Parts: sequence; structure tokens; C-alpha cells
Amino acid sequence: MATQVDEDIAIQLRRSAAEVERALEARLGRLTSFPPRLLEAMRYSVNAGGKRLRPLLVLWCCELCGGRTEAAMPPAMAIECVHTFSLIHDDLPALDDDDLRRGRPASHRRFGEALAILAGDSLHALAFEILSEDVSQPSTSSAMTRELAAATGGAGMIGGEVLDLSGAGLPPAVEAVARIHEAKTARLIQAACRLGGLAAEADERRMEAISNYGLALGLAFQVSDDLLDACGTTEAVGKRTGKDADAGRPTYPAAVGIEESRRVACQTAERAIAALGPFGSAADRLAALARYVVQRSS
Amino acid sequence: MATQVDEDIAIQLRRSAAEVERALEARLGRLTSFPPRLLEAMRYSVNAGGKRLRPLLVLWCCELCGGRTEAAMPPAMAIECVHTFSLIHDDLPALDDDDLRRGRPASHRRFGEALAILAGDSLHALAFEILSEDVSQPSTSSAMTRELAAATGGAGMIGGEVLDLSGAGLPPAVEAVARIHEAKTARLIQAACRLGGLAAEADERRMEAISNYGLALGLAFQVSDDLLDACGTTEAVGKRTGKDADAGRPTYPAAVGIEESRRVACQTAERAIAALGPFGSAADRLAALARYVVQRSS
Repeated sequence: MATQVDEDIAIQLRRSAAEVERALEARLGRLTSFPPRLLEAMRYSVNAGGKRLRPLLVLWCCELCGGRTEAAMPPAMAIECVHTFSLIHDDLPALDDDDLRRGRPASHRRFGEALAILAGDSLHALAFEILSEDVSQPSTSSAMTRELAAATGGAGMIGGEVLDLSGAGLPPAVEAVARIHEAKTARLIQAACRLGGLAAEADERRMEAISNYGLALGLAFQVSDDLLDACGTTEAVGKRTGKDADAGRPTYPAAVGIEESRRVACQTAERAIAALGPFGSAADRLAALARYVVQRSS
Repeated sequence: MATQVDEDIAIQLRRSAAEVERALEARLGRLTSFPPRLLEAMRYSVNAGGKRLRPLLVLWCCELCGGRTEAAMPPAMAIECVHTFSLIHDDLPALDDDDLRRGRPASHRRFGEALAILAGDSLHALAFEILSEDVSQPSTSSAMTRELAAATGGAGMIGGEVLDLSGAGLPPAVEAVARIHEAKTARLIQAACRLGGLAAEADERRMEAISNYGLALGLAFQVSDDLLDACGTTEAVGKRTGKDADAGRPTYPAAVGIEESRRVACQTAERAIAALGPFGSAADRLAALARYVVQRSS
């Protein structure tokens, strides 16, 4: 049963998500020199909804570190572009072969594989274009590019996808699953927090605190995503469920069972919350978010 | 018949290409935290040879504008990563469906489609990571990111690919072909020149001259590429030829015929050379390169 705190955080999530969506829509609206069909495919996936967890974290971590929303919005949009590109490519027949994404046909089902691949590539490039547009803060912009590129590439999200694919069918050891989850999911969620810190020009101590929060939150999020896939219904989740088990994917439930996975998710969320210590009650919203992420799957 | 100038420029091309290849190999060698199979796929395509035209242009334009090779090498590597990613994705079954690239199996034939898609994505992210690594020159690094992302994305190379695909089967109008070629090929070649200028912190007048050179060179290059596809053999070119006509692709030969295409290529190369006027004889090597690019298809 949802508590009062859950409802509050859900409302705040929706409000910030709407703010990010407005900014993204305005930014995409300026891409008048793009082929219309390409822009349509990019918009289709960007506008598909979702929690907007990563851009939210950029905004909220920037605010927590005393920064302005205007400074956080470009990296917030950029990381959502990267996340969206990764979903489009993940759904392709050669990868997860998913026909459904957020309750609608996946990009390749709607636009064909060729345009889906290119729409993903185009969102990937757009992320870095957005990050480099603010010419007034070149050292911040350059640090953000470094952060996002490293978290996206072969040592981060894309590397995690490779490990995930190559781990399919093997008996999953919990350490291997943890390593895949960290690369595939947690590293980009950590980068979202760090981008918020960079936008606020946070000092080293604060950067470290939000880094630790982000990494633990990302792990808790992926474990609870595994649990949703194992226990949820397609209607409730908005994408095909049970697919990890079908594909023999390395997941927490497969490695340690449902109950132990629930315990790990809660424990990791508590570790995320503990990392926020230096901020005191100013970080209550981020703490509530960590609990919310885990509760959606319990 | 090859002239003395051709031979000189061919030697200089190979020397600079080898320098870029050594730097790329060293950079890839540092990616020790990447999954080995992913790194293998990235290396396979990066090491596949080719003329290294784009990184060469970064180095040579930087030198022409009085900059140092060390400043030009990161953007040279970055643009080659972007070019390589685009070749991997272009060859995929959903796009050009090419089994052969530079005389070897295409990435998806060697590693499977999933890994080919992810190797391309990983090279794309690596390009921006490389551009943002030099923390001593953040405003140059930020300007380079802006330049490369814009030339790569929907208003540049990726947008050109979308237009190219959607133009297949239509009777090609020469203006439409020119627009596709500019976006798909010439914009990234222009960016190579501009990245060299940025590395050298060139003034506005020099930037404009190398921009104009790069755009014209890029068009001349693509027209001569069309001619190679229409007239060359698979053995000589290292990839399947005649495929543009088979696919009903918008090309110059299809729009205006072989002879007129040859004339356009030469005329465009001369326009590129004329743009180098402000540099005098210091630009002789770039002028020879423009002639060389056209002669390979005549």
C-alpha cells in the first residue's frame, strides 16, 4: 500500500519529469534541419514517457548542491537522449528483440530497423551537441562530456550490455550479475547525479557523496527492475515481462532467488540513503526517491 | 597514369595514416576495463585500414594553421572513431547489407549483428571521451565537441544517411543528390578540417578558408566514390561495387551520367583548391590531396 511519502515523491517525480519533457520538446523543435522522418522517429521515442529518472537526478542533485535549474537542464536533456538511444538499440531484433516499449510498438516496429538504428545514433550525437552548447562555461561543459561519454561507452552502459548478452545462458554468479548491473545501469545513474554536481560546481566532498548515492541507487534500481520482470505483468510494467528468464539472462532473481533479491534491493537503497548523510535533511527528497525505487517492485 | 605529384602525395598520405594508426592503437590499448570481446570488435574495424582521410585532414589543416600535431591528434582519433562507427552501422543488414568492408568480412559478419551495433555505439561514445580528455584547453575541447557532434548528427552524416535511404528508388534530381552528399559525407570532411583549425586556434579568416576547402573536397570525394562504385571492380575497391545502381541509390552517375560526374568531381576539387588561396604555397599538400581524391576514380 502506498504511504503518504510515496505519494509526495510520486507527485514531485511527475512535476520534474514534466519540466524535463517541456525542455526536450523545445530542444527537438529546434532541429529544423533534420530530415522530418528522422526527427519523427527521435520524437516518438523521446516522448514515450517513462519515469525520467536520470534527468530528474541531474536536476535534484544540482539543486541539492546549490546550483541553478538552468545549468542542470542541458545535462538532464543530454542524459535522457543517451538513455533513449540505448532503449531504441536494445529493443532491436539483434539485441533484446522487443516489440513493445512503454506500452507502444518499439521504434523498429514503428519505423523499421534502419531508421530505428539511425534515430538512436542521432540521439547519441545530440546528447553531446547539447552538452557543448553553453559556451560560457567551457570547463564545466568539457567535464560533463567526459563524464557522460565514459558512463555511456565500453566501460559503462554499452560494455554492460555486451556483458549482459554474453552472460545469457550461463549459470549466473551473484558477483558477475552485480558487475553487469553496475556497468549496464548503475554507472549511467551515477553519472546523472555527478552531472548535477558538475552543473552546481559542487566541491569534492559533495561530489563524492552524490557519486556514492548514485551508484547504490542505480544498483537498487536494476535489482528492482529484475524483480519487476520476474514478478510483474506486461500490463503493469508496459513492456514484455518474464523475458529475462526466457532469455536465460543474468539477473539477481536467477542468481539468488526472489526473497534474497528483495533484501539486496532494500539494503542497497539504504546504502544510497546513508551516502546522503553530509547533506542532512536537505536530501530528504533523494532519500525518498531511493525508497520509492525499491518499493515499486515489492 | 600516376604522375610524380600523385606518388608524393600517396607517400605522404601513408606516412600520416601510419601516425594516426599508431596513436589509435595506443589509445585502444588503454581500454582495459572494456569487455574483451567488445574491444576486439572495435579494434577489428578501427584497424581495417582505409585512407584515414578525415584524421589526415585534421593533422594537415592544424599544421597549415600553425598548430602542433599533439593538439591535433585527439580530434584526429575522435573523427576516425566516428567514421568507423558509421561504417559498421552502414554495413548492417537493415541498412546497406554489405558483407564486405575493405576486403574483409563486415563487422556484423565477423561478430554478429548485436556486437556490431554495440561496437559502433562504443566507438561513437569514445570519440567524445577522447575530445574531452585534455583538461588544459576546455574551451577548445568544448568547441571541438560542438563541431563533431553537429557534423555527426541529424543535420550532418546521420541525417544524410536517412535521406540516402529514403531516396532509394526515386529518379534522382541532381540538387537532391548534392544535398544528400553534402550531409552524408562532405559535412564530416569539413568538420575534419575545422577540427584541425580549432586545434591550432586558427583565426576566423583561416577557419573560413579551410571550411570552404573541406566542404568542396568532401563533395568531390563523394562524387568520385559514386564513380568508383559505378565503374570500379570489387577487387580494386575492396568492397562490393555496382551496389548503388542495384539499390537504386541517389548518386551523381545516376542523375547526370558518368562523364558529367567526372566533370563535376574535377570542378569541385578545383573549387576546394581555390579556397586555399589565402595560404599560398603552404597549402600545396592539401591542393595535391584534392586532385588525388578525384584522380583515383578517373
